[in-house]
Amino acid sequence: MTTPLPQGATIGILGGGQLGRMLSVAAARLGFRSHVFEPAANPPAAHVADRVTTAGYEDAAALAAFAASVDVITYEFENIPTAALDLLEAAKPIRPNRRALAVSQDRIAEKDFLTGLGLNVAPYAAVNSLDDLRAALERIGAPAILKTTRLGYDGKGQARLRTADDAEAAFATMGGAAAVLEGFVNFSHEVSVIAARGLDGAVACYDPGENVHRDGILHTTTVPARLSAAQRADAVLIAARILNALDYVGVMGVELFVTPQGLLVNEIAPRVHNSGHWTQNGCAVDQFEQHIRAVAGWPLGDGNRYADVVMENLIGDDVLRVPQIAGERNAALHLYGKAEARPGRKMGHVNRIKG
Amino acid sequence: MTTPLPQGATIGILGGGQLGRMLSVAAARLGFRSHVFEPAANPPAAHVADRVTTAGYEDAAALAAFAASVDVITYEFENIPTAALDLLEAAKPIRPNRRALAVSQDRIAEKDFLTGLGLNVAPYAAVNSLDDLRAALERIGAPAILKTTRLGYDGKGQARLRTADDAEAAFATMGGAAAVLEGFVNFSHEVSVIAARGLDGAVACYDPGENVHRDGILHTTTVPARLSAAQRADAVLIAARILNALDYVGVMGVELFVTPQGLLVNEIAPRVHNSGHWTQNGCAVDQFEQHIRAVAGWPLGDGNRYADVVMENLIGDDVLRVPQIAGERNAALHLYGKAEARPGRKMGHVNRIKG
Repeated sequence: MTTPLPQGATIGILGGGQLGRMLSVAAARLGFRSHVFEPAANPPAAHVADRVTTAGYEDAAALAAFAASVDVITYEFENIPTAALDLLEAAKPIRPNRRALAVSQDRIAEKDFLTGLGLNVAPYAAVNSLDDLRAALERIGAPAILKTTRLGYDGKGQARLRTADDAEAAFATMGGAAAVLEGFVNFSHEVSVIAARGLDGAVACYDPGENVHRDGILHTTTVPARLSAAQRADAVLIAARILNALDYVGVMGVELFVTPQGLLVNEIAPRVHNSGHWTQNGCAVDQFEQHIRAVAGWPLGDGNRYADVVMENLIGDDVLRVPQIAGERNAALHLYGKAEARPGRKMGHVNRIKG
Repeated sequence: MTTPLPQGATIGILGGGQLGRMLSVAAARLGFRSHVFEPAANPPAAHVADRVTTAGYEDAAALAAFAASVDVITYEFENIPTAALDLLEAAKPIRPNRRALAVSQDRIAEKDFLTGLGLNVAPYAAVNSLDDLRAALERIGAPAILKTTRLGYDGKGQARLRTADDAEAAFATMGGAAAVLEGFVNFSHEVSVIAARGLDGAVACYDPGENVHRDGILHTTTVPARLSAAQRADAVLIAARILNALDYVGVMGVELFVTPQGLLVNEIAPRVHNSGHWTQNGCAVDQFEQHIRAVAGWPLGDGNRYADVVMENLIGDDVLRVPQIAGERNAALHLYGKAEARPGRKMGHVNRIKG
């Protein structure tokens, strides 16, 4: 199935958070309908989606009805239960594909995959016991960071080890889950490439953005990033190699560490990515539309950037600053319609256009 | 009621066409819900609105329920029946206000209002009979154009008179409706100013765009328009005078003719306007968000333009060119999700970013 989806077709989206919300809007902009599948009631995407199914991923009947009602299935997050994917995939194409999901759902599979491509990553070792952890620390050294191999994001499921003495406490934090120890990398800054690959195999990358995190959560992304021309070219080549190796269709976020020895891949996300939100106000085709174009078999947008942008996430109480931000010059607000501003919760973002 | 609406509040929108659709998306972007009232089934706005009421403007119960469910009411078109407005206004604020609607619903009231402000318009005369028309032609001369005073848009309800001999045929076209004869104006081009006024009386204007029509329907809008600095300042001052005189809240489209004797007001539209669609890809806050900000009592965006843009409407079969336009560089597509491409029907538009 490689014919472009016609206008009026329905894009199925697993997950109704802010990414699903912005994907729904992008789908509408191209004349598509969106149907969001989300277990939680009243998700952000529901305010803009054409249709919403509220059901759990174990609800086979709901999944089947959802799949029957859409033309293609995509997702806003990578931790979708395998059984649900099996059921959905039997009915309709899932893009990006299962391999991309399998690789990115598991930090060790991801690092094995990346090193298999000849790409550089931080030193790592699988940790399934305290003994594993001690052996890994011996090899990799401290400081280091221990992470669960699955389901971790935004700093959750992680423990920092300043010295080998922190091993026991860090291991306890994992709660028995499979984990990976990652060595600290001497990097000057982190950048990410938002890359896309179409059904026809064409690849388009946006200009890399420079990320700053706070409390383990993305705080700002700035374009252009501080990168030499060679680093910029490298970043794009790395992303393209990953997409091609996975026969990927859709948008991927590729986080890279900038080190004196070159670029290291931190992690990949098989979906639109928070560090690509700046594209909404800097490009003719933003990452959300780019993703919809890819999964619908449309030609990709070119990714050309026509403005400098600084994206700032509005986390928790940051949303109280909205009235003030609304009065700023050249500031584009994007709020997610979440009722409750819990600490650490992404409530919206602002793209400040710099020229 | 001048407190800004909080996020989560509901914007009621009368009319579910493409303008209501893009207003709904803009409302969501600011964290608002949208509730669209539209007599026709499956309108374009339904794909992105939080809620849709399908009912006619004579359905008092539906209007009352709609008004009860929203915090403020706005509209995408100016020909809303008076009785419906009376009912709605008793329940919730309508922005822009009734005076703006009354003035713009009637071409003669509009011209009387504009000339009363000291603004220049084309020579005009009310025509209620064939004798009126003959007398008006004597005074204004031919060529001229006869238009119904109400409900005309996109070239409908209009008849051109090349000479006085066309009087009878033109008058017959009006079908007995009240009409206005407008003299032709020797203008070099048409521009429009998309202007906004906030609840606090602040006014913000976008850079004027230059309009080209085909078959009486807007074809392209180009920014920047060909205007001298003095003309540009004039255009903005004219728009501001109109908004202030009406104690207006929201976005207004002001069409102006550029003539050797200065700017003439062609017509005003008390709503977001097709000639302002370029703002979606040239400004941090587009006209749709600007309108929502105004009616919600939020600060206006600054209107600053950071790119040159040419907007092209996709009318009827133009939509068949979408696959090709999707492959263009720097082209931002905006499709309206309309199933059937009838001749003259606005199916979408494309904003081509020029740098």
